[in-house]
Amino acid sequence: MSTVINFQTDPSKYRHWRVEYDGQVANLFMDVDENAGLFDGYQLKLNSYDLGVDIELSDIVQRMRFEHPEVKVVVMQSGNDKVFCAGANIRMLGGATHTHKVNFCKFTNETRNTYEAAEADSSQKYICAVRGACAGGGYELALACNYIMLTNDSNSSVALPEVPLLAVLPGTGGLTRVTDKRKVRRDRADIFCSIEEGVKGQRAKDWRLVDEVVANSKFDEAVQERAREFADASSKASGLTGIELTPLNRTFGKDGSVSYTAVEVEIDRASSRATITISGPDGDAPADMEAMQVMGADAYMLRVARELDDAIMHLRLNETELALLVFRTQGDAALVQAHEALLLDNQDHWLANEVLKFWKRVLKRVDMTSRTLIALVEHGSCFSGVFAELLWAADRSYMMEDEFEGDNRPMAAVTLSASNFGPMPMGNDLTRLETRFLGEPDAVAKAKACIGEALEAEAADELGLVTMILDDIDWEDEIRVFFEERASFSPDALTGMEANLRFAGPETMETRIFGRLTAWQNWIFQRPNAVGEKGALQRYGSGVRGEYNMERV
Amino acid sequence: MSTVINFQTDPSKYRHWRVEYDGQVANLFMDVDENAGLFDGYQLKLNSYDLGVDIELSDIVQRMRFEHPEVKVVVMQSGNDKVFCAGANIRMLGGATHTHKVNFCKFTNETRNTYEAAEADSSQKYICAVRGACAGGGYELALACNYIMLTNDSNSSVALPEVPLLAVLPGTGGLTRVTDKRKVRRDRADIFCSIEEGVKGQRAKDWRLVDEVVANSKFDEAVQERAREFADASSKASGLTGIELTPLNRTFGKDGSVSYTAVEVEIDRASSRATITISGPDGDAPADMEAMQVMGADAYMLRVARELDDAIMHLRLNETELALLVFRTQGDAALVQAHEALLLDNQDHWLANEVLKFWKRVLKRVDMTSRTLIALVEHGSCFSGVFAELLWAADRSYMMEDEFEGDNRPMAAVTLSASNFGPMPMGNDLTRLETRFLGEPDAVAKAKACIGEALEAEAADELGLVTMILDDIDWEDEIRVFFEERASFSPDALTGMEANLRFAGPETMETRIFGRLTAWQNWIFQRPNAVGEKGALQRYGSGVRGEYNMERV
Repeated sequence: MSTVINFQTDPSKYRHWRVEYDGQVANLFMDVDENAGLFDGYQLKLNSYDLGVDIELSDIVQRMRFEHPEVKVVVMQSGNDKVFCAGANIRMLGGATHTHKVNFCKFTNETRNTYEAAEADSSQKYICAVRGACAGGGYELALACNYIMLTNDSNSSVALPEVPLLAVLPGTGGLTRVTDKRKVRRDRADIFCSIEEGVKGQRAKDWRLVDEVVANSKFDEAVQERAREFADASSKASGLTGIELTPLNRTFGKDGSVSYTAVEVEIDRASSRATITISGPDGDAPADMEAMQVMGADAYMLRVARELDDAIMHLRLNETELALLVFRTQGDAALVQAHEALLLDNQDHWLANEVLKFWKRVLKRVDMTSRTLIALVEHGSCFSGVFAELLWAADRSYMMEDEFEGDNRPMAAVTLSASNFGPMPMGNDLTRLETRFLGEPDAVAKAKACIGEALEAEAADELGLVTMILDDIDWEDEIRVFFEERASFSPDALTGMEANLRFAGPETMETRIFGRLTAWQNWIFQRPNAVGEKGALQRYGSGVRGEYNMERV
Repeated sequence: MSTVINFQTDPSKYRHWRVEYDGQVANLFMDVDENAGLFDGYQLKLNSYDLGVDIELSDIVQRMRFEHPEVKVVVMQSGNDKVFCAGANIRMLGGATHTHKVNFCKFTNETRNTYEAAEADSSQKYICAVRGACAGGGYELALACNYIMLTNDSNSSVALPEVPLLAVLPGTGGLTRVTDKRKVRRDRADIFCSIEEGVKGQRAKDWRLVDEVVANSKFDEAVQERAREFADASSKASGLTGIELTPLNRTFGKDGSVSYTAVEVEIDRASSRATITISGPDGDAPADMEAMQVMGADAYMLRVARELDDAIMHLRLNETELALLVFRTQGDAALVQAHEALLLDNQDHWLANEVLKFWKRVLKRVDMTSRTLIALVEHGSCFSGVFAELLWAADRSYMMEDEFEGDNRPMAAVTLSASNFGPMPMGNDLTRLETRFLGEPDAVAKAKACIGEALEAEAADELGLVTMILDDIDWEDEIRVFFEERASFSPDALTGMEANLRFAGPETMETRIFGRLTAWQNWIFQRPNAVGEKGALQRYGSGVRGEYNMERV
C-alpha cells in the first residue's frame, strides 16, 4: 500500500457513487465498481467499500453543500438491487497495515460525522432508504443519516455482524450510535450485535434500529414522499445557487513538499517533522458576499480551508512516519481579520455559513490528527481569529517575545475574534478556549474582552493563550531541544497521551466514537484473535472460522 | 503467574502498609517490603507496587469505613524517607501477561475510585502528603486523594514520566484526573507528562498539580494541622464505633467451585461458564440498626455484598478463561425486601449508609467485569431491590414464564424498591434503569410506580425489565443455544462490545478512566514499542532505551 492516496476527486472521476439532482431533493446512489479498489488484492463485492469509495462520498457531501445549496434532502440508497451495502471490505481490512486500518476508520468516521451534521449546519437532511442487506459498515452509513427507512421484504435487514463474524467491532460509530443516537435498549443492542443475520421489518422499528418500515411495493414512493415532506418542512431558503469547487492548485515537490496557493508543506524527514505555513491574503476582502460568491472557490477563506484540509489528510495517510506537525502563519493580520469579518458579519448568507462550518470541520480534523501539533507564533505571523484556533488545537505553542536581531517583520501578535468564542466548537461541544480553561473559566471572559486587540507576547502569555514566550536568546535552542526530544518518544504512547489530553471534560457522541469506541477497536485490531494468522479477519471467506485464544482480559 | 490470588487479607498480614489511628485522623503509611512481591522475579524497590500492595490498600480503605467510622480524615504518606512512591513496579509489568496487566490496572483503578469517593460517601477525606519523588502510579495515588500537599525541597516532586520513560500511559486514572479533576491547562499537561523529572514546588501549585506547597521544615506540622482543620469542619458525627470485618467464610472446591455462606460459585469449565447463586436470608431482618450493628459482619446484607465482591474479583483474576458469568438467586423475596428496607429506612445511620455505599461499589465492579453477564430469573428466585440491579448490570436476562412441569417453587417475580431509583448509580451517574431506558425515559417512571409489587414474567416484560421471558417449552433450549454461541465468540470483540454497550449516554471522569484512558492503555500494552523485545517496558532498567517503530497510526 505505498501508492500516494489522493483525497481530491470530482464527479467526472467517480466509480462508486452517482447523484441525481432533482430540485430540493438529491438521490445519492451507492453502486460500487468491484474492480476499482484503491489497492490491489481485493474486489469490492456486494457494495463493500474501501478508502477510495469513502473519498468519493466525502467529496459528494462537500460538493452538495457548496455546489448544490438548493438541496434540502439527500436520499442515500443503493444502486444495487440485492444489497444495500455489505460494509467495509474484509479482504482489504485483512491485508491492510494496522496504520492504514486505523486511518481508514478515522477518515470514514469523519465523513459520517460530516453528513450527519449537514442537517443542523446546512439544512441538508439525509434519509437512508434501505433495500437489501445493510450490514456492518453499511448499517453504519445508515446510522449517520438523520432518518432511516427500511423496506419490508425477506431480503432486507439491518445488521452489525462484526463481533460474531469478524471478531472486531462495528467501529465506524456503530456501537455508539446504537446506544447514544438510536438509544436502543442495551440488552436488545447486545442481541442485535450478536446475530449475523440482523433484524428485519417491524422488529427493526420496535427496537429503534430504523425510523420507518414500509411495505416493499410502496417503498420507493414512500421514500420520495418523505423526502418531499422533509424538504417542504425545511426552513432553508429555496433556489440558492452554488459555487463550483474547482480543482485545487497543488504541486508535489521531490522532497515530499506540497505547495498550494496559500498553504505550503515542507518536510524535514531527518527530524520527522512537517511544517505547514499558511500565508495571509494577497488582497482585500471581497466587498460583500455577492462579490465573494462571484470569486467562488478562489475566495481566500474557502481556498485556505480546502488547502489545509487536503494537506492534513495527505500527511495523515501518506506521511505516516512524521512525528511533528508545525503550524506557522505569515501575512497581514488585519487582512485576515477583514476576510474573516465578512463571514462573521453575514452568517445568515448561505455561503458565509458554509465556509464557517467548513472551518469548524477542518479544525476538528486537526484536533483528531494523531501527531504532535505545535504552533509557532513568529514575527510577521497572522494568528488571528480562526487561525488562532490552531494555537489551541496544538499540543503546545511557542511565541516570539521582543525584537529578534535582524528580523524586521512586524512583532508577533495574536488577535482574537468572535470565531474564538462559539462558532468553532471542538467535538466535545466546547470551544477550544473553554476546553483550555476548564480549570479557570474566568479566563475565557478575560480573553473575550480583548477581541480585536493585537496581543503581543507578554499579553498573550498573561491571558494564557500560548504555552511559552521566548526571546531571541532562547527561541531556537528551546524549540530545537523540544522537537528532538518529542521525535524520540514512542509514537504509540504519544497517540494515547494526546487522545486523552486533547479532549478534556465532557464527552459527546462524537468524542465517544473517536475515544472509547475507536480505542477499543484499535486494541482489537492488534489482537491475534482478529488479525493473527488464525484470526477471524484473516480467515474470513476461507470457510474456516477463526481460532480464538479464549482468555478474557 | 499461576498462583491463586487471594483478595482477602487483614492488618495482621500486611507487609506494605500500616495505619496509625488517632481519633478523627488516621495516618496511613506506604512502606513497601521489597521482598514481598506477589510473584517471583521482581523486587518492589522505591515503594513501587504490585497487585499485592494494592490488595492491602483496598482492604485498608474498606476497613476504614466499617471498622473506623470515627475517622474523618486519612493522611496518605510514605514510610520511606527518600521516596513517596515510584508507581507500579516496572519489572512486574514487564513480566506480566497482557491479561494480568489489564486486570491489575482495573483493580487499582477501582481502589483509587473507592477512596476518592470516601469523602462524598462516608465523610472520610483523604489528604496526600507528598515528600520525596512521587512518580507515575505514585502520583496517581495522590491524584485520587481529595487534597494534595507537597513539601518544598529539592527531592520532592510530582511526575508522570510514563510516556518518555516507558512508552505507556499514566493509565491508573493519571491523564484523566490531570485534565478532568485537576483541570490542568492542556499544554501544561502535555509538558508535565513529557518530562521524566516532574514538577517541584511552587510551579506544581501554579499548574494545579497539587493544592498546597509547604516549606519542608514546616511540612509535617502543616499536614497534621490541615488534617485537624478538615476533621473539625466535617459534618460527620463524632465518636462512632465500628464493626469488625471478620474473615469471610469461604471454601474452595476441587472443581474450582467456591462456597460462601450465601453465595455459591459453580464452574462448568467445558462450557466456559460460572454460575453465581445468591441465597436469600436465612432469618428475619434485624429489628433495628442497633441490632444490625451487634450482628456486625454477619448481618445478611453486608455479608452477601462481601461474598459477592470477593467472588467477582476471584473470577476476574483467577478464572480468566470463563466466558460467561450467570447470576441466579434463590430465596424468600419478602425477606430480602425486609433486610434491604432496614437499610433504606435508616440511611442516616452510619452503618446503613456504609452497607448501601458498599453495594453501590460491588455493583459497579459487576458493571466493569469484562465477561458476558447473564441473569436467570427462575422460579423461587428473589431478584428484589438491590438484587434486581443485577438484571440490568447483566448483558441479558432471561425470566421463567408460567408454571414449569414438576417445579413447585414460587413463580418467578421481580420486585422493585427505592434502591433501583437512585442510591446505586452506575459510573455514568445514571441509575441502571435510566441507562437502560435512555430512549424511553417514561419507562423509568412506569417502573417506579410498581415499587413493591411482585412482577411476574408478563408484567416484567411489559415494563422492559427483562430481555426475554420463556416458558417451560423454550427455556432450556433457548438458553443453552445462547450460552454455546456466546462462548464461541472472540473474547476480545466481546470485551470491546460490552465496554461500549454497557455505558451508554453521558460520560463521567470515572467512565472516562475505564473507557477512553483504559482502552488506549490496553492498545499500547499490545504494541511492540511498549511490550516487544526491544520495547521500553522490557528494556527498562537495562540502561538501553527502547527501540521504536516510528510509524504513527
